[in-house]
Amino acid sequence: MTRVEQAERTPQQERSIRTRRRILECAGTLFDRRGYSGTTVEDIAKEAAVTRGALYHHFRHKQYIAAAILEEQFEGMVIPPQRVRMQELVDAGYLLAYGLQNDAIQRGAARLTMEQGTDPIDRARAMQLWVEFAVSILFEAQKNGEVRPGVDVKRAGRTLVVSFTGAQNMSQALTDRRDLYEYITDIWRYSLPGVVNDDVMGQLTFDPARGAQIAGNRMALAS
Amino acid sequence: MTRVEQAERTPQQERSIRTRRRILECAGTLFDRRGYSGTTVEDIAKEAAVTRGALYHHFRHKQYIAAAILEEQFEGMVIPPQRVRMQELVDAGYLLAYGLQNDAIQRGAARLTMEQGTDPIDRARAMQLWVEFAVSILFEAQKNGEVRPGVDVKRAGRTLVVSFTGAQNMSQALTDRRDLYEYITDIWRYSLPGVVNDDVMGQLTFDPARGAQIAGNRMALAS
Repeated sequence: MTRVEQAERTPQQERSIRTRRRILECAGTLFDRRGYSGTTVEDIAKEAAVTRGALYHHFRHKQYIAAAILEEQFEGMVIPPQRVRMQELVDAGYLLAYGLQNDAIQRGAARLTMEQGTDPIDRARAMQLWVEFAVSILFEAQKNGEVRPGVDVKRAGRTLVVSFTGAQNMSQALTDRRDLYEYITDIWRYSLPGVVNDDVMGQLTFDPARGAQIAGNRMALAS
Repeated sequence: MTRVEQAERTPQQERSIRTRRRILECAGTLFDRRGYSGTTVEDIAKEAAVTRGALYHHFRHKQYIAAAILEEQFEGMVIPPQRVRMQELVDAGYLLAYGLQNDAIQRGAARLTMEQGTDPIDRARAMQLWVEFAVSILFEAQKNGEVRPGVDVKRAGRTLVVSFTGAQNMSQALTDRRDLYEYITDIWRYSLPGVVNDDVMGQLTFDPARGAQIAGNRMALAS
């Protein structure tokens, strides 16, 4: 948040923003643990220590809470630019993995997106936004001469998101996402050679710690 | 089923086997549509047109039905041997995609495996069996000189299962699995170049129709 934005907000607005954030984080934690249908608005109000009235002031229905979580998962996905553009996609994978381990909103959003429910959640939109995000970086990489000839950037980008989706689900099931970094590194190692040129492959850094670094820098900037 | 097996079975046994199968197929359809917790034993009995007593004769608890579905999804995964062993993994992907579009047990098993529930389902075991299945073919491919030097076969195999898992989830969400074949072909096209040698890559056939062919041949043999 910039100084100007801070100056324009009254203490009451500040409080309201913080309450909204706390509601989303608590809802994210509960959705991650129990799923959408297994979580009630009452559960969320209790977990966030707000009255039902305060909660309804921010969100008139549980499905708006879920929608807000699916939106806000993209807020922090700002990746520092890199000379090799494909490194930005690699870094985004590690940043998302960091979020899935440490951020209630990312965890809640992941489960909301994976669940094959009859609930009113627009999982398709969340998935498509991830595909667009990956494809946009791949297009930059292609302009930079990094992509193999003959690669369909839209389909290759979708395939990488597909792989990430599976990694998040499988590591969630097998180790509560503790080995997610290993899955992500394996995706980069085994799926990128079919997408980028060999010399680019040799220049990429597969370092899971980059996720925590980017998240840490972002928080330092915001404070 | 062989002629000998048929001769050894009484008509009553035959009927019992068919009833068990029908229960599993109906349960698979319901689990696919409504999930494990959204489906009751009563729903399954009604869908299969059997009494609750008949159902309990086969399965004493809903979780045993789910366990049987997760076991039986592997029954049909018998892939004709190929000169290029990696073709068998490619074919297995298309056969599984065919099953996910056409077979109630495969569809039910997929949703049971994806759901991040607090139910008693052993999703981890089902995922690990798929990884073992893929790794076993990759080992054969490696013995056959098809795998790139430096590839960790266990981790590469797991990565391909991870990608398939994501494809099944994303295509389910976006098009009710109609474009699953396209996702699978993209995985082979973009993820296999990092795993197999270039000359092997050139010899692989990416033909989604192979799934239906293998399934069709299997049914012809069984009848």
